[in-house]
Amino acid sequence: MTFVDGLQCGRFDERVLRDLRAGGVDCVTVTCAFWEDAGEALDALGRWRELEREFAGLIAIARSVDDVRRAADDGRTAIVLGFQNSSPFEGRISYVELFAELGVRVAQLTYNNQNEAGGSCYEPRDSGLARFGRELVREMNAVGMLIDLSHVGDRTSLDAIEASDMPVAISHANPSSLVPHRRNKSDAVLEALAERDGVLGCALYPNITGRYGRSAASWAELIARAVDLMGIDHVGIGTDLPHHLTQADLDWMRMGRWTRQADFGAGSAANPGVNAAPIWLESPRHFPRIGTALRAQGFDQLEIDKVTGGNWLRLYESVWQPVGPLVTTTSGEKPCTS
Amino acid sequence: MTFVDGLQCGRFDERVLRDLRAGGVDCVTVTCAFWEDAGEALDALGRWRELEREFAGLIAIARSVDDVRRAADDGRTAIVLGFQNSSPFEGRISYVELFAELGVRVAQLTYNNQNEAGGSCYEPRDSGLARFGRELVREMNAVGMLIDLSHVGDRTSLDAIEASDMPVAISHANPSSLVPHRRNKSDAVLEALAERDGVLGCALYPNITGRYGRSAASWAELIARAVDLMGIDHVGIGTDLPHHLTQADLDWMRMGRWTRQADFGAGSAANPGVNAAPIWLESPRHFPRIGTALRAQGFDQLEIDKVTGGNWLRLYESVWQPVGPLVTTTSGEKPCTS
Repeated sequence: MTFVDGLQCGRFDERVLRDLRAGGVDCVTVTCAFWEDAGEALDALGRWRELEREFAGLIAIARSVDDVRRAADDGRTAIVLGFQNSSPFEGRISYVELFAELGVRVAQLTYNNQNEAGGSCYEPRDSGLARFGRELVREMNAVGMLIDLSHVGDRTSLDAIEASDMPVAISHANPSSLVPHRRNKSDAVLEALAERDGVLGCALYPNITGRYGRSAASWAELIARAVDLMGIDHVGIGTDLPHHLTQADLDWMRMGRWTRQADFGAGSAANPGVNAAPIWLESPRHFPRIGTALRAQGFDQLEIDKVTGGNWLRLYESVWQPVGPLVTTTSGEKPCTS
Repeated sequence: MTFVDGLQCGRFDERVLRDLRAGGVDCVTVTCAFWEDAGEALDALGRWRELEREFAGLIAIARSVDDVRRAADDGRTAIVLGFQNSSPFEGRISYVELFAELGVRVAQLTYNNQNEAGGSCYEPRDSGLARFGRELVREMNAVGMLIDLSHVGDRTSLDAIEASDMPVAISHANPSSLVPHRRNKSDAVLEALAERDGVLGCALYPNITGRYGRSAASWAELIARAVDLMGIDHVGIGTDLPHHLTQADLDWMRMGRWTRQADFGAGSAANPGVNAAPIWLESPRHFPRIGTALRAQGFDQLEIDKVTGGNWLRLYESVWQPVGPLVTTTSGEKPCTS
């Protein structure tokens, strides 16, 4: 195994898929929803099935860590289908199992805005895990879908880490103690995540990476600091690399259908547009530079293997259980309101 | 004019429509959505169009206060189409205008659970008005749709009252200082509502009416207390009368699709089922008893006219503007995040 990337987004075409192979990226979680509803998420899953058929020699959609390993053995990149929002569930608890059965293995509770599940990092006030959020956490545990908290508010994140019987992920963010930004995570959240055996995917999105994104060496330094905070078993990679991202894509990610006003997401009025990828990781072909930089930073091979992929695979292994019958509670047993 | 009821729900059939006429109910807001999405809400609107055609001599769907008055002059009951949730908007700001054009004149920001707009009265923590909630309030103001806060949390209610350029409604609830219950409203919320010229519809739903629901006289006393708190111009009727309500209907209202566990809404494990309507208002035919009781309580005719309908009509008149072109903001003008 070489690289497991906890999150990428954008448009995957043959060139991107070949670049992933060339960079030794054996597993990548892709974004099938930002604000999409169930029908639109199904469309995205359908497109991935088509890509898988068209480029069967390059990729394979993975539902298990065995699938990831088999793909790597065959020289293919394992694609993990993921949602950056719980919007495809449309507030219906029963949809979680259905999307899991269709191969979705990771979902964020919220994207940039509050929803039925909880609060986001950009809300004026974070509700914490809401009534539906508690149901959702339990259901995702039951069907073996990894809970992702990357854009989720700190209070909701802490609640979810505590409520979940399984370890959870922050697939793409950085410690806010290193790069102060609402999208980054407090030490309290990161420590709680690690304590419950979760994994942080350190991000390369320029708006939330600051000076640490300027070179492979400085990003390796960010990773080293994250390891100092969370331990070597709890830090991975979640580049957030966007492929062929247009301003229209970015507008969708930020404004969706919820506002007609400009919303700059992790950017700002002074920096409203698509960020150029870091020059040293312009393409997935450049992933080996990460390994080199980690070595130069002083990590040994065992540590590098954990950070570049082993930690994600351990987390996936522990969370991605096969979908089984769900426990239903006898009516009247546990009221949620009085 | 005799009676304007700020909220009823359940199944309206010929008998109910005739009872409304017999009781002198000239205007009633009906519930077209609890958890319904856009398509399901359209179905409900379609059913009301059919009812209107079938019983054209009994009812007319009202889009304006002129429509309400015309219906009364013709001896018909004006039907105001309302949502008890913003779920039909599906987080899309553009749907508000579309549903307004289809005749929806009132919508709650949330029903029993937190959503993209804000927090509910049953959530462990109320977020206050969220990012989408601010957009929604502005949009509802712009298209002339009345904002209803009956099931909304207190913090979100206060935020919405402040954020709205138009007066807002609590269509069916009681003062929690009289009947302590999470579904009822704090004096702070009720005072803020009145200060911005809003109206509270006092409810008759047994779970939130307590001892005040036992007789017309005691309910008139509750109304008198609400008037003491809010002033004679800010109290109306919002019975929440349910027609032909079954346990399955109640389960939908409480559990929707968000949980498989029992949720008792305003009830409890000890009181899980459909409440019998108060014996003195078993049918809309009995509405005149309200007028009689208010008179016995000491209200004069001018005051009775306000409470039984005049206050709602004043509020409707001020809020239900014709749908016009919406202001769009120049991209980049007002970022919501930094």
